[in-house]
Amino acid sequence: MKDSNRGNIFIISAASGTGKTTLVSRLLNNHADLRVSVSHTTRAPREGEQNGVHYHFVSKEEFEALIAQNAFLEHANVFGNYYGTSIAGVNALSEQGFDVILEIDVQGAEQVRRTLPEAHSIFILPPSFEVLAARLKGRATDSEEVIRTRLSKARHEIEQAAGFDYIVVNDDLAQAEADLLNIVRSCRLQKTAQQGFLANLLENF
Amino acid sequence: MKDSNRGNIFIISAASGTGKTTLVSRLLNNHADLRVSVSHTTRAPREGEQNGVHYHFVSKEEFEALIAQNAFLEHANVFGNYYGTSIAGVNALSEQGFDVILEIDVQGAEQVRRTLPEAHSIFILPPSFEVLAARLKGRATDSEEVIRTRLSKARHEIEQAAGFDYIVVNDDLAQAEADLLNIVRSCRLQKTAQQGFLANLLENF
Repeated sequence: MKDSNRGNIFIISAASGTGKTTLVSRLLNNHADLRVSVSHTTRAPREGEQNGVHYHFVSKEEFEALIAQNAFLEHANVFGNYYGTSIAGVNALSEQGFDVILEIDVQGAEQVRRTLPEAHSIFILPPSFEVLAARLKGRATDSEEVIRTRLSKARHEIEQAAGFDYIVVNDDLAQAEADLLNIVRSCRLQKTAQQGFLANLLENF
Repeated sequence: MKDSNRGNIFIISAASGTGKTTLVSRLLNNHADLRVSVSHTTRAPREGEQNGVHYHFVSKEEFEALIAQNAFLEHANVFGNYYGTSIAGVNALSEQGFDVILEIDVQGAEQVRRTLPEAHSIFILPPSFEVLAARLKGRATDSEEVIRTRLSKARHEIEQAAGFDYIVVNDDLAQAEADLLNIVRSCRLQKTAQQGFLANLLENF
């Protein structure tokens, strides 16, 4: 039985150009009971970055040992530096009672859904093809072919939405943020999250 | 595929003395996009009651014909008059885009969940045994035995909560109303409710 004080885990994905990062930043800034897990990285700390706050700064050897232990939900090597989300870090936040947000790209989301089947998954959609196309067209100097490739990739990503539990349309940013919060709050009311309360109540009869 | 404009159906149950009726009335008064279905009855209209608004007033023969056609989600005979919730009435509201609330007692809820597997079910719990016991004790003249019977019935009802999708604790009435609304809104964001939007979006690529 799940501890009723344990927070829920949310996987949030979207097609490129849907405004996911802005949306998730707003959600986290406005709600102190929601957290993202602190990632591990092998890159050097920048001015002002604190170990354990902005990142867990580890050596390449430590990171590769964690990979070998299957300690990461997902990891990637970007320009020679590793970045990863540790399963233990996500679970620790959840056990402290925080609802944990994992911002995962579409390619990684299916893998993470399998590793964390108890997580709730949310896909962010653009309001229309036209809005997405305008965002992806970017600078006027981009070639037709580059734009076509971006749109084709976006279509492929959006097709994955059907495998997620919830779909939020990012038309108005404030409304999309409210929708995300609504999903997070409602998951606290699901039977599985309330079983502890129910068991306690019945014990007193 | 479900029409994305179709409203959802919610089954709301609770143990006696949990304040379900007050809570559901508040929710319906405050949100015009939520509806309860209009019941059928064989009793005579009272002063000011309109057919099709307060009830569908039908004859005993008509009601029994509807029973024979399995037209009711649930029906009961109270002091010689029939009362029932018609499946067609619930579906008509849902097709018009309203989210439909069905206030069903614990005994009937399992049957209704089987008849409408797509419905979302919510159980309202009291905040504690003490609060429920105080409510169920009622008048000081009730015998110990009557009170014991009520509490035993309440325990049996509360045990059914584990079969529902969501659990709301009615401690503070405004908070419990907000929780119910939260569940209703989040169900509009579930993948099944958003499939129409997703299909339209992909068609335009």
